[in-house]
Amino acid sequence: MGLKHLLKEGTFKVTGRLRIEQPEEPFFGPGRLQLLELIDEKGSINQAAKAMGMSYSKAWKMINSLNEQALHPLVATQTGGEKGGGAIITPEAKEIIAYFKDLQTRFELFLQQETKKLGD
Amino acid sequence: MGLKHLLKEGTFKVTGRLRIEQPEEPFFGPGRLQLLELIDEKGSINQAAKAMGMSYSKAWKMINSLNEQALHPLVATQTGGEKGGGAIITPEAKEIIAYFKDLQTRFELFLQQETKKLGD
Repeated sequence: MGLKHLLKEGTFKVTGRLRIEQPEEPFFGPGRLQLLELIDEKGSINQAAKAMGMSYSKAWKMINSLNEQALHPLVATQTGGEKGGGAIITPEAKEIIAYFKDLQTRFELFLQQETKKLGD
Repeated sequence: MGLKHLLKEGTFKVTGRLRIEQPEEPFFGPGRLQLLELIDEKGSINQAAKAMGMSYSKAWKMINSLNEQALHPLVATQTGGEKGGGAIITPEAKEIIAYFKDLQTRFELFLQQETKKLGD
């Protein structure tokens, strides 16, 4: 039995957020996913940070954290200096993005099942 | 295959948070769970709010939101005035707490499975 008998009419859903982390350091979550996808789209860390309303230095902190925890860098900057040159995400970054999206899909399924159970 | 081949040695875990919500209004999550449990323990909204480092008015907002979405009140205040008298949580609140904890247990299982998969 769910909670329907205790709740007023409404659209109650089970929602949530996932991340991958180490005890002392976040590794991957919705924010870093979005940052990597924007870097991939725009070819620029500066443009990606702007699109997220995030400071350039905060974006770099996230990228350093990602690169330090991965065996191979996830973001690579190209010649021309940090702001001058472009940036790309590596095949390893794309693999991690795909993995995280699959994980989110499995989580969505869990949330749907739990939302259904809630309404029983 | 997980992400082990892309990550340095470490203790990577899949973690997350769940809540129950309507499109325009949160209903239940870890914060409200803690507030209700503290009211139950201390018999006082004021003491419960203090223990969470939360203002009395914020605690009341959460309680009003809970009470307004439930068919029967989840928190009831006793005579003596808002600050003077005590507060109790109702059997309906206890049922929702138990449901949410079971939901969190199922979520923990999902997170454990995903953490295991990640390390493959």
